[in-house]
Amino acid sequence: MTAQMIPADVETPDILVDLDVLDRNITRMADTVRAKGLALRPHAKTHKIPEIAARQLAAGATGLTVATIGEAEVFAGAGVDDLFIAYPLWLSDRKAGRLRDLARKAKLTIGVDSAEGAARLGQGLGTAAGSVRVLVEVDSGHHRSGVRPHSAADVARAASDAGLDVAGVFTFPGHSYAPGMPVAAAAQEQEALRLAAEALAAAGFTTGVRSGGSTPTALLTGDSAATEVRPGVYVFGDAQQLELGRCAPEDIALTVAATVVSHHAVEPGTPPRFIIDAGSKILGSDKPAWATGYGRLLDHPDARITALSEHHATVEWHSPEGPPALGERLRAIPNHVCLAMNLVDDVAVVSNGSLVERWRVAARGKNS
Amino acid sequence: MTAQMIPADVETPDILVDLDVLDRNITRMADTVRAKGLALRPHAKTHKIPEIAARQLAAGATGLTVATIGEAEVFAGAGVDDLFIAYPLWLSDRKAGRLRDLARKAKLTIGVDSAEGAARLGQGLGTAAGSVRVLVEVDSGHHRSGVRPHSAADVARAASDAGLDVAGVFTFPGHSYAPGMPVAAAAQEQEALRLAAEALAAAGFTTGVRSGGSTPTALLTGDSAATEVRPGVYVFGDAQQLELGRCAPEDIALTVAATVVSHHAVEPGTPPRFIIDAGSKILGSDKPAWATGYGRLLDHPDARITALSEHHATVEWHSPEGPPALGERLRAIPNHVCLAMNLVDDVAVVSNGSLVERWRVAARGKNS
Repeated sequence: MTAQMIPADVETPDILVDLDVLDRNITRMADTVRAKGLALRPHAKTHKIPEIAARQLAAGATGLTVATIGEAEVFAGAGVDDLFIAYPLWLSDRKAGRLRDLARKAKLTIGVDSAEGAARLGQGLGTAAGSVRVLVEVDSGHHRSGVRPHSAADVARAASDAGLDVAGVFTFPGHSYAPGMPVAAAAQEQEALRLAAEALAAAGFTTGVRSGGSTPTALLTGDSAATEVRPGVYVFGDAQQLELGRCAPEDIALTVAATVVSHHAVEPGTPPRFIIDAGSKILGSDKPAWATGYGRLLDHPDARITALSEHHATVEWHSPEGPPALGERLRAIPNHVCLAMNLVDDVAVVSNGSLVERWRVAARGKNS
Repeated sequence: MTAQMIPADVETPDILVDLDVLDRNITRMADTVRAKGLALRPHAKTHKIPEIAARQLAAGATGLTVATIGEAEVFAGAGVDDLFIAYPLWLSDRKAGRLRDLARKAKLTIGVDSAEGAARLGQGLGTAAGSVRVLVEVDSGHHRSGVRPHSAADVARAASDAGLDVAGVFTFPGHSYAPGMPVAAAAQEQEALRLAAEALAAAGFTTGVRSGGSTPTALLTGDSAATEVRPGVYVFGDAQQLELGRCAPEDIALTVAATVVSHHAVEPGTPPRFIIDAGSKILGSDKPAWATGYGRLLDHPDARITALSEHHATVEWHSPEGPPALGERLRAIPNHVCLAMNLVDDVAVVSNGSLVERWRVAARGKNS
């Protein structure tokens, strides 16, 4: 099975995107979110690929979420006309100029989480400020950026004073990425959105947009304070989502094709150990404390990636059948797919075991 | 100090290379290794930049080490004519063709750690095999690739049978990257090289090249079984080396310029916490268990990076002076500089606080 799923004309290591699984994931999320009456604004930092954005929009996404001005520029350049930069930007003069250019090409929404940041944003946008919507970022328990819900009105007031169009609130429940956390995090997310929207409404602001949702919580967002969700990872899945039980092996659309390059001599009675040519420079090295390793092997659920160097992954083999021979090719699942995608210039798009095309990772490395 | 060290014309996040510190690091390693009578073959996977390779060669390096055929192609294209691919390559037909092309441009050395890999290498190189040197990789305790020292002759014999020129042995003491380990790992490295060279000599092979050395062990390699060392990280230093005591803050040549974008509301009595705009997509996310965080701040030794997302680092502030204001710019030190460098297309080269040029990371992403 493994061999036939990696086209012969793919060299290793390389990233494979299974087109059929990708399309199924895109459709399923779109249908589920639509059935809940929510808007879907997928986070494009996961894939960074205009061809995938086009598929998400065709399936009904209302626009895209991005993390940086550079990502927004790439997707605006590809024709996406509704973009949310979900980040508390601190504008330099040059970034302000780029943002003014962007505001001419797309309907822009930008995150704010401080009065100072909002004032600077308004000033930097100048006459374009009125055409740019802002959402106040609220901390729903991840304790990263974002204000507490009851402080949302202070930020909204500063944004409004700076000439910006306050459209609502958003949050990122990143603490949902841990075992047993998705349900609790989704509840906190809804509560934070509800409280922040109340605070804004009490201060006389509209709260039409209440944006939440990561891949673990988006499907849980039931009777909801949110009006839209911003999942990213769902298009591909990854080993984190797999181990959290948020996706199944058949939902994994992205793998790293790798070759067995070295067998290690091990003590008798210890599991066989071998090296594949996919290391941290293609798998990424995110490893939460609860993860069982540095990624998984799609076709060998018992194997574990126990160590990772830049170009080596050490695989411990726990299957009764013997380990793969030198030269065999395997499919590794990154722990965190957003990082893996950011490590390559293009990906191999595969359908039924054949290479159908290559897509450029157009927004790779757009950190600012 | 911080502000003046980040040129005003650098946007954040961006990688800064301090030219003066870089040159000092290059000279110091070259002088030390020369004084020991060893050859220096720096690992270029750390920097991936031809301009830095040129400085290493000008300081007396005998050639470069690389990890992949793609990296070798970039440096050969930049005129480096002596390259060691320190990796147990498993050749596809296409890779064999690329390697034959390379063998026409540079003196090539390639790692082998199995009879099968050696046979395939010889076959792939065809008539070029005789002009390519191989070094047998030996495991000195890192337990990654490499055979046990007493098995080195078996691999050498297979390589020789395949028409390759067996020139000696090499090892990578990667287990030196841990507190208290450099001295022990350096001793194991020397013992492994000595035993493997003896095994090769007993089987009638020359063992002229005995190559070892990581940044932590290269300077420790005293009365030595090695004839050359392959340190990489020493050109820049990083937070790992700093916390291992293998470099000082004034040796850090690479930092990530970042801006404070968000202040977090914290409970009274807990340290201030804020967010900078450098996350795992520019710092990299390597974090060994013994590290104090996800990197350090060069000008604020008491601060700790306690969490990392793709575009956010959470900084905990432990200084009696107040935390930096929104918009202030700071210099973050990546934990593992080889990964950070692989995340950007180019770097800002800085001298005395001024931007002097930009260097392209020409071998970024060359995973195969």
